[in-house]
Amino acid sequence: MNIKAIDKKYVLPTYARADVEFIKGENATLFDVDGKKYIDFTSGIGVVSVGHGNKRVADALCKQVSAITHISNLYYIEPQALAAQKVVEASGYDMQCFFGNSGAEANEGAIKIARKHGERDGEIKRYKIITLNHSFHGRTITTVKATGQESMHNYFGPFPDGFVYADGIEEIESLLDDHTAGVMIELIQGEGGVEPQDKEKVQKLAKLLKEKEIPLIIDEVQTGCYRVGEFTASQAYGIEPEIITLAKGVGGGVPVGIVMTTLKNVLSAGDHGSTFGGNYLSSRAVCEVVDILNERKASGDLEITSLLFNNALESFYKKYEDIFIQKVGFGMMCGLRVKDADTLTNIINAARQNGVMVLKAGRNTLRFLPPLTITKEEIDEGFEALSRAVSSL
Amino acid sequence: MNIKAIDKKYVLPTYARADVEFIKGENATLFDVDGKKYIDFTSGIGVVSVGHGNKRVADALCKQVSAITHISNLYYIEPQALAAQKVVEASGYDMQCFFGNSGAEANEGAIKIARKHGERDGEIKRYKIITLNHSFHGRTITTVKATGQESMHNYFGPFPDGFVYADGIEEIESLLDDHTAGVMIELIQGEGGVEPQDKEKVQKLAKLLKEKEIPLIIDEVQTGCYRVGEFTASQAYGIEPEIITLAKGVGGGVPVGIVMTTLKNVLSAGDHGSTFGGNYLSSRAVCEVVDILNERKASGDLEITSLLFNNALESFYKKYEDIFIQKVGFGMMCGLRVKDADTLTNIINAARQNGVMVLKAGRNTLRFLPPLTITKEEIDEGFEALSRAVSSL
Ligand SMILES: Cc1ncc(COP(=O)(O)O)c(C=O)c1O
Ligand SMILES: Cc1ncc(COP(=O)(O)O)c(C=O)c1O
Repeated sequence: MNIKAIDKKYVLPTYARADVEFIKGENATLFDVDGKKYIDFTSGIGVVSVGHGNKRVADALCKQVSAITHISNLYYIEPQALAAQKVVEASGYDMQCFFGNSGAEANEGAIKIARKHGERDGEIKRYKIITLNHSFHGRTITTVKATGQESMHNYFGPFPDGFVYADGIEEIESLLDDHTAGVMIELIQGEGGVEPQDKEKVQKLAKLLKEKEIPLIIDEVQTGCYRVGEFTASQAYGIEPEIITLAKGVGGGVPVGIVMTTLKNVLSAGDHGSTFGGNYLSSRAVCEVVDILNERKASGDLEITSLLFNNALESFYKKYEDIFIQKVGFGMMCGLRVKDADTLTNIINAARQNGVMVLKAGRNTLRFLPPLTITKEEIDEGFEALSRAVSSL
Repeated sequence: MNIKAIDKKYVLPTYARADVEFIKGENATLFDVDGKKYIDFTSGIGVVSVGHGNKRVADALCKQVSAITHISNLYYIEPQALAAQKVVEASGYDMQCFFGNSGAEANEGAIKIARKHGERDGEIKRYKIITLNHSFHGRTITTVKATGQESMHNYFGPFPDGFVYADGIEEIESLLDDHTAGVMIELIQGEGGVEPQDKEKVQKLAKLLKEKEIPLIIDEVQTGCYRVGEFTASQAYGIEPEIITLAKGVGGGVPVGIVMTTLKNVLSAGDHGSTFGGNYLSSRAVCEVVDILNERKASGDLEITSLLFNNALESFYKKYEDIFIQKVGFGMMCGLRVKDADTLTNIINAARQNGVMVLKAGRNTLRFLPPLTITKEEIDEGFEALSRAVSSL
């Protein structure tokens, strides 16, 4: 049986898989099982932040798995402590970390912290979490409910109560009440369609919440770990949230989710836990990824890559203004609005056939989340392939 | 700063860590930062099923991370398809798999499947999940609620409704109603205190649920992947559940959670998902771990190890009948009931000082979850150290 047949037979049909099977990657270049080459503008939906097969990460992980992979959080774990330190220092916030294994788990941790904080706060029990319409926060039953997409609130209920959806940043103020335990937002909605929030509005909201002592939770699962130029988008927005969640890019491909918070005294021993979270393997990956990207930030390479990518994207956009309506995004999290959803699907398929991988977001956004280490050659080759794809429609 | 100080400064205080920091492991032998040697009777709470630093796993992972670690479930992933096949074949059940990143995520998937199955079932919406008192199912808000321990149902609510707790297998029948979507149990409660369920009662329950078309969910996060001699404890109990969850040992230290089910048509594309789940790294680990343990099962090594371990445990128990009340467990998931909780804590600390790692479970159970590859020498050395520890009290 070939792999597609095995997949169909043994894997639950929760994914509509595109007809391609990669076996190897080198930075932003992928090779499929037939030896065909592709430029990767997706990095596995923002995960492979330092490129496929990154030698430093691979060497660090090789060394780690040969020594020790896992032992449990009953004991001190050197790379976990170091990963926490690196992440906190890169953020510049006075925070502490908890390690889980996914974006959804990081957000579960965030909600737990906000709610326990709300309970300790006095007589009134604060439990409501306000999130935004078109948000995406994960696939556990609680994070599905936190996700502001009504179409996802089916089948799996009863969902937990206490989630309230705002139509935009401005609407949040009117929804705050004595039961509000936290506000959770993406600064740039990823799955929702590469939708950056307005900086001033966000700053105003952050200020208001500080006054009311309501924790602001920024879901940086997609925006975090230098995706938008700073370690967190929160830094780029000039705010100081109480809780930040990270996943995707921060492990470079190893499953990891982090919730970090200034609220250091809310959770006590036994309040939260994870078997795998922060083990030697995943936290060693975090250490290496953050080191690599810290260095690229300091050397200016990160900014140069972002400029090169955005220039190339801009030229491409200008060339096809009949097809694309708008260029959107921030740093290396970019999108082009396509005039309609069918055209978008056609572009993605034609792109793959022409040797470049791109993503869909929201209803009509062509999404770009390239590795942060993509080279000029890869950028050029990718957009050439994408031009061929678009021209062929 | 040393690692303990870094940990205290940057990691949230959700764990009460014992004062030891391992840096290397070889099968069931650990070495701490001072070069001190320990025998590991914990395998990271049942995770490192094939031993620390397992060379086959390390080599497979090294090769994998050098080639490709992650790409996303939008495309076919060879090791994911193969891991699903291996897991399903090892179980002997006609099932399909979904890959997440932890035991909690696997159980979230199980609850989602049972509830969607309940919704499709006709007019009455089935949504209630019956679980057992003293169970443990995870740390997401929903799996905390599924966990039958009242003391855990604090701080983080509103929890989702629809969880009902039975005092034991026999009580479940009386709790079934038209709204029951599933029954979720551990066959041997792990965190609850190494409590095996009665085989006949479980078989009777399984039969009853089949008649009523209510899915039986077996949480095999701790019992699965040959921990109790068969690939799943369900096989050892001679039942055919509709849903099984795996995590811990199935990845040998790499974060992975699997929900597998005979209910292949309940979830459709888009109903569930995970960014990291089933990526090249974690599913390659599953492939290698299952291969290794399949071979040990076929060669008889698995059974020999279990016999050796249980004999040594039995002798130890006989030697200290003044301290231990009962030997409990199944296969390589064993425990000794200690006369009181304080003595248990003292034993665990003295054991560590004497060079052997053991676990607590429930209120008063000394728990043993050694690597399934532990050697006779390691077993002997471990129990010698444990004897020294107990004698020193
Ligand atoms: C903003 C955001 N939050 C949370 C998640 C969930 O992450 P995971 O799939 O790792 O659980 C995602 C995944 O796409 C995301 O984009
Ligand atoms: C039976 C059982 N289910 C679920 C879990 C949760 O697994 P995880 O910590 O990987 O989320 C555990 C962890 O101890 C467990 O023993």
